[in-house]
Amino acid sequence: MSTDLEREVEELALIDHHVHGPLAGQTDDATFQNLLTESDRPLAHGTSVFHSHLGMAIINECPEVLGLDGVRTPADYLRARRDLPVAELTRTLLDASGVDEWLVDTGLGESLLMDLPTMSTVTRGSVREIARLETIAEKLVTTTTATGLHDAVIGHLDDLAPMVAGWKSVIAYRHGFDFDPTRPSRSDVITAAGRWMRAIESGASPRVSDPVLLRMLLFAACDTGLPVQLHAGYGDPDLDLHRSNPALLVDWLREVESSGSDIMLLHCYPYHREAGYLAHVFPHVYFDVGLAINYTGAASTRVIAESMELAPFTKVLYSSDAYGPPELHYLGAQLWRRGTARTLQSWIDDGGWSENDALRVARLIGRENARRVYGEAHE
Amino acid sequence: MSTDLEREVEELALIDHHVHGPLAGQTDDATFQNLLTESDRPLAHGTSVFHSHLGMAIINECPEVLGLDGVRTPADYLRARRDLPVAELTRTLLDASGVDEWLVDTGLGESLLMDLPTMSTVTRGSVREIARLETIAEKLVTTTTATGLHDAVIGHLDDLAPMVAGWKSVIAYRHGFDFDPTRPSRSDVITAAGRWMRAIESGASPRVSDPVLLRMLLFAACDTGLPVQLHAGYGDPDLDLHRSNPALLVDWLREVESSGSDIMLLHCYPYHREAGYLAHVFPHVYFDVGLAINYTGAASTRVIAESMELAPFTKVLYSSDAYGPPELHYLGAQLWRRGTARTLQSWIDDGGWSENDALRVARLIGRENARRVYGEAHE
Amino acid sequence: MSTDLEREVEELALIDHHVHGPLAGQTDDATFQNLLTESDRPLAHGTSVFHSHLGMAIINECPEVLGLDGVRTPADYLRARRDLPVAELTRTLLDASGVDEWLVDTGLGESLLMDLPTMSTVTRGSVREIARLETIAEKLVTTTTATGLHDAVIGHLDDLAPMVAGWKSVIAYRHGFDFDPTRPSRSDVITAAGRWMRAIESGASPRVSDPVLLRMLLFAACDTGLPVQLHAGYGDPDLDLHRSNPALLVDWLREVESSGSDIMLLHCYPYHREAGYLAHVFPHVYFDVGLAINYTGAASTRVIAESMELAPFTKVLYSSDAYGPPELHYLGAQLWRRGTARTLQSWIDDGGWSENDALRVARLIGRENARRVYGEAHE
Repeated sequence: MSTDLEREVEELALIDHHVHGPLAGQTDDATFQNLLTESDRPLAHGTSVFHSHLGMAIINECPEVLGLDGVRTPADYLRARRDLPVAELTRTLLDASGVDEWLVDTGLGESLLMDLPTMSTVTRGSVREIARLETIAEKLVTTTTATGLHDAVIGHLDDLAPMVAGWKSVIAYRHGFDFDPTRPSRSDVITAAGRWMRAIESGASPRVSDPVLLRMLLFAACDTGLPVQLHAGYGDPDLDLHRSNPALLVDWLREVESSGSDIMLLHCYPYHREAGYLAHVFPHVYFDVGLAINYTGAASTRVIAESMELAPFTKVLYSSDAYGPPELHYLGAQLWRRGTARTLQSWIDDGGWSENDALRVARLIGRENARRVYGEAHE
Repeated sequence: MSTDLEREVEELALIDHHVHGPLAGQTDDATFQNLLTESDRPLAHGTSVFHSHLGMAIINECPEVLGLDGVRTPADYLRARRDLPVAELTRTLLDASGVDEWLVDTGLGESLLMDLPTMSTVTRGSVREIARLETIAEKLVTTTTATGLHDAVIGHLDDLAPMVAGWKSVIAYRHGFDFDPTRPSRSDVITAAGRWMRAIESGASPRVSDPVLLRMLLFAACDTGLPVQLHAGYGDPDLDLHRSNPALLVDWLREVESSGSDIMLLHCYPYHREAGYLAHVFPHVYFDVGLAINYTGAASTRVIAESMELAPFTKVLYSSDAYGPPELHYLGAQLWRRGTARTLQSWIDDGGWSENDALRVARLIGRENARRVYGEAHE
Repeated sequence: MSTDLEREVEELALIDHHVHGPLAGQTDDATFQNLLTESDRPLAHGTSVFHSHLGMAIINECPEVLGLDGVRTPADYLRARRDLPVAELTRTLLDASGVDEWLVDTGLGESLLMDLPTMSTVTRGSVREIARLETIAEKLVTTTTATGLHDAVIGHLDDLAPMVAGWKSVIAYRHGFDFDPTRPSRSDVITAAGRWMRAIESGASPRVSDPVLLRMLLFAACDTGLPVQLHAGYGDPDLDLHRSNPALLVDWLREVESSGSDIMLLHCYPYHREAGYLAHVFPHVYFDVGLAINYTGAASTRVIAESMELAPFTKVLYSSDAYGPPELHYLGAQLWRRGTARTLQSWIDDGGWSENDALRVARLIGRENARRVYGEAHE
């Protein structure tokens, strides 16, 4: 039995401010299951990816949306899913999410995922791009010199700026947040770029991981005045969790406070309370618990509630961080609605709040804060 | 509908063991609103300080106490509040808190806040002083020499000791808890004091931030045997959150374990579980979640519950950390009562506790632990 | 009134995968009370060990199991307990736990606790050994040379391997997790062993704390392919809490990923979310919140719930970490059942789960994961 508040939160049109594309084509069962964990390792012997919150949520919540009556087990689900045309599956789940604007990180998984024009054809929502800084550098490195890289980045960001909603940095993965918070000098950038180019010539992968270059990208992004998203907190096994605690960013946040760019801390779990503090004290800091919502499934209500403690309600956003299976695009929204409504309802029941208070906060987090930070889409 | 336990917790006379004075005079709306956030920055564009737990709690909980029927919006509240005489507003809210003893940190905001004698006239509770160590040093530095500073501090603390309930350190703000845990040598203190004095002569602010001097103050305080309060965990943007984790104090806590002084960790959020561990294993360690209660408002029940996990119930205290608006002196107590009663009720309902168990714990945390640590006021 | 799920979780036969022996003999009241805290310090003045979650749980939950009608206070309980024969008291509480297999860390408290054969006589459960690595080294050091220590350890572990269920390391206590993650060289081990032996000859205690030797033990343990348990998170005042955060193990976990040994992170509080992340991304990582369950008593439901967020349900285990009073062997299980059932019930009520989903997860965590990792007992 739903409360009035739950029904109203159910109806909200959301902005998903950090998401990736849905799968471009039909996928085999193994690939689908690999996309339901952050691990890139084989599963532990004798275990199934469905023995997890995300696995349970898919089996319990998605069949109804997809009209798959009677599907109750992972095997049933995998079988039934294979029979659905990709476009139909994707459209149904994206529509059911109630998201009417997607800000899509295009920096990863190009061949596996729908590109933005294709994604636009399977969703009623509008689609805007978030460009990934490291991916940009890794493209530019092949066409410029050590001396020219910095200007090439600045020029490229300036060109892209009118067409994107913001930038994304994965410095948490590539280095960690324990970096020198100051703007690197031009000569340091040239030296680092030279080192990087020589390594690539010697056969190294073009993956940028030099902290001087990663910092250069961050400052170049802030110079555009557009919002800058940073992956924070947990992710795949590449990452050193304790070095992705957003509290470590504090000196850098002070450095870029006057840049005009808002800093969007993504995911943050299990450091979402630290993120909430930063969002409380710094006007240019925002955050979400994106990735953690899908991955904690039925337990996500507590994570969502914890994200609504210290931060002003004007500084928290919704994202799904869905990547690949469109089940994730749907479930992120569904779980956010449920957890947010339950949390707000408890404050009505026990904390002296009115239903209007609650609904105002749901609207801020689900939509209005993102609109204020990212503006309207360019026509 | 209240439970018996809620009614009994409602009636408890509390000791607020860490608080600041209420506002001395009428304040304009901007100043009032600035005092409802820990940030010293302008608000993010398009946001209101009332879109926060504290803002919501004020609008939802204070009008009734103040007899402001029909006040439902921030604008209404600000307008109605301006018409109330300061002494009446303050007296009403302080009385409604049910606090009958206030331990007041006098080290900050002297011109803005009521002094202790004035505060005594607007509360039925008794008022005792907590003297701030850094403020003492910053006064003494103008009247002594580098060689004399250490003895001047010791002499001043000895003089004050009979008149104060304890000391307060803000080393978390001025340096962080990653300091050398040993007692500084006399010659190190003289060197550091000389450096500080020369800096002041050269025009620097007299703000003490040298870790040698901050440590000297801490050890001098512990030598008096009086309780020593340390700000821990979140605060304003000056602070590096991860360096204010009380777990970092462990070596220093071992150093001062035999001093006879109890160490009172204030606020601690989001490191209140770390504080609970320290309070569990070290007999001289106590803590509260003071500041976090007002700032998490309707969500404070979970923070309060988390503060009642590992620590013995004899080692947790109540404080509001209210500073300025007397709404904070009231709300801290009100929210503590609600969150504590709800938490304890859940242990009666689900955990095998009796109502007597619950009430005994509420009395320990709300009053008796503070009485045991700080003793009775001197007559 | 219990739900169906609560009744079914109540009936589960558990494997307690990390526990110590129960008290061997009658104990005086002081010793009993000392065993109800992780602190080795005297209690703070004016406080009682029963003013804690564990103390409350014992008084509220154990009299009924022991047939001590009318016992309601600590004094009553201590008096009544003294009259019960040790074997009967122990048998009653161990039986009431519903544990049918105990994996017992034998590395600490030999004279105080029952040895494994004796423990086997007072429990219907089977009893298997977890051998403590540091204790093994501290025995071997007296009978070998600096050059011979490494091989002596390897030989000893090889001899023991067929008879034990796994190994336990307390490197968290002896050094912290901020150790060099690589395998130490043979010559480094010889140098460190020589240093240790000379220190012992000079009268130092034979306690091994050199990080080179502690790492050697860890790698030797992983070379056996048996599960390796690591104390993580909170413990007694010896430990630096922030240095026992399992997130700090990430590089070492990568080093031993291919060893075939599973890494079992014990307790982890307040870093159980970090542990859950590691268990999510690394196939060889498992964890529990053992010690934290008894010590948070009526509040343990939230800790248990938080341990069931990010980690797959196949990677979380049950343990009591009981040491000494058999009340702890019972309460650990009792509190785990209650907290787990409540948590799972909330996901049925609010999260779309079926009762079958819930029961399957309870079985995984309470029993099946341990069976899969540790195998069946050798006959």
